[in-house]
Amino acid sequence: MDSKSFLAALNPDSMVVKPSHRVRLKDFDPGFTGDFKKKEAKALLQQGVEELARYQDMLYAQNTYALLLIFQAMDAAGKDSTIKHVMSGINPQGCQVYSFKQPSVEELDHDYLWRSFKALPERGNIGIFNRSYYEEVLVVRVRPELLAQQQLPLSTRGDHIWQQRFEEINNFEKYLVSNGIVVMKFFLNVSKEEQKNRFLDRIDRPEKNWKFSVADVKERGRWDDYMAAYEDMFSHTSTPWAPWHIIPADSKWFTRLAVASFIHQKLKSLNLAYPVLEDNHLERLREARVMLEREGE
Amino acid sequence: MDSKSFLAALNPDSMVVKPSHRVRLKDFDPGFTGDFKKKEAKALLQQGVEELARYQDMLYAQNTYALLLIFQAMDAAGKDSTIKHVMSGINPQGCQVYSFKQPSVEELDHDYLWRSFKALPERGNIGIFNRSYYEEVLVVRVRPELLAQQQLPLSTRGDHIWQQRFEEINNFEKYLVSNGIVVMKFFLNVSKEEQKNRFLDRIDRPEKNWKFSVADVKERGRWDDYMAAYEDMFSHTSTPWAPWHIIPADSKWFTRLAVASFIHQKLKSLNLAYPVLEDNHLERLREARVMLEREGE
Repeated sequence: MDSKSFLAALNPDSMVVKPSHRVRLKDFDPGFTGDFKKKEAKALLQQGVEELARYQDMLYAQNTYALLLIFQAMDAAGKDSTIKHVMSGINPQGCQVYSFKQPSVEELDHDYLWRSFKALPERGNIGIFNRSYYEEVLVVRVRPELLAQQQLPLSTRGDHIWQQRFEEINNFEKYLVSNGIVVMKFFLNVSKEEQKNRFLDRIDRPEKNWKFSVADVKERGRWDDYMAAYEDMFSHTSTPWAPWHIIPADSKWFTRLAVASFIHQKLKSLNLAYPVLEDNHLERLREARVMLEREGE
Repeated sequence: MDSKSFLAALNPDSMVVKPSHRVRLKDFDPGFTGDFKKKEAKALLQQGVEELARYQDMLYAQNTYALLLIFQAMDAAGKDSTIKHVMSGINPQGCQVYSFKQPSVEELDHDYLWRSFKALPERGNIGIFNRSYYEEVLVVRVRPELLAQQQLPLSTRGDHIWQQRFEEINNFEKYLVSNGIVVMKFFLNVSKEEQKNRFLDRIDRPEKNWKFSVADVKERGRWDDYMAAYEDMFSHTSTPWAPWHIIPADSKWFTRLAVASFIHQKLKSLNLAYPVLEDNHLERLREARVMLEREGE
């Protein structure tokens, strides 16, 4: 995959949120698929997955950077399947996926970034957050009873908390990037209509039943509140060091291809390479060679 | 891959350590490749990897069992590359690899199983230990200064500690298996001669230099001590609930195929299936369907 010309064809500017711009989701078409055809996209994805594996090997050997991929979306937008299809060629030694669920009592007794800190990828690794600390300005904002559970100091209670959290998150990510943890953020932008189709599919196909919960329909009822929270979040947390990508998600094959392309481009930009040893280390390698050859003499 | 006939061709009995049998490694040929040819083995592995991915999907959906794969071996026996080639088709969401390094000061301040407990796979997941608590009866036995660091109570000091640890490990694994964590243990059995070839290769090929450390040659100098420790360990920790597999490792392609086959056979034996919902849950699905269809009416 020639990621440059390929990404150009994808029209990437249409998917990256410019810092300090007010975002309206109606400007982002969930059904966008560029000029791609499904079959062609699948072949390109296959190629892309192989190249990602090649880059990952260097990332791991070089042991300088880590890559943190954050996925946020409404239910059934394709987070799980995107992770599966984009990352299944990757060496699992060097890749960690964390699915953040409802916080435990222990987690609630800590600050809201605590569990994310613990789950950060080690140098050389790719870390994937399936949902993330962004839930702290999404579901926690849409459902105030969740914020109440957090036992926050009085001074932080009130509507200014969201602006405060945006700034804290921006600072957190700036710290990560400065310390070699590259942060990429993907919102899989599914339409309300397509979510309904996918829910019905999960209800109708027995082997998909387990992926569906009636609670999902309840959350769907809060669709507009979620979209407002997302828009405010994008408008305040797309930064030069960690911009948001809003990926069209009504066609799964396009979602996967777009995500793979952005990751590919980012890894390429890091100029990864296998470590070259310094002279004194090379000298010791030569000594080791002599030791091995003289064995048993 | 028809794992049954395939495993039969692999001559599995020759690789599984019978419980309570005294093991001598000279009875296990590191160069064994059955009647397989490399090309044929590669094609079979490819098939096997795809089937493992299919089983993993069910393991994850069913969310009852976890699979813990333990890899032990001398340096350059192929642990990393086996993990890479057998597991790279796997969905990383559902697979966690832990590479146990020298214990940290914090880890040394805990009992020796503490860090392994923390790294156990969640239900539905495959966990891979690249090295493991078995180092506690291997490197720690071969290099007594490492045991001294552990500040053990006086009563446990002395040669009876190894027998004590074997029993503790057997009990630990029995507990895991009883609680749904299936334990599979693989020793990649490389010959001393082949290790030397691989070391020389790592010295001679610049892109492999980073995988080699002069300390590796020092450990090689303790080869016989390690083999004695391994033999004692196999003789005491191959149990009906978690037997050891001693996998020929002088041909990497055979190692990978044999490991994949054993895992495949084990997953098959678990009778994994996608969860079937109970009637009252199905009723709620039907209600959800109605809610979705009535939307906007």
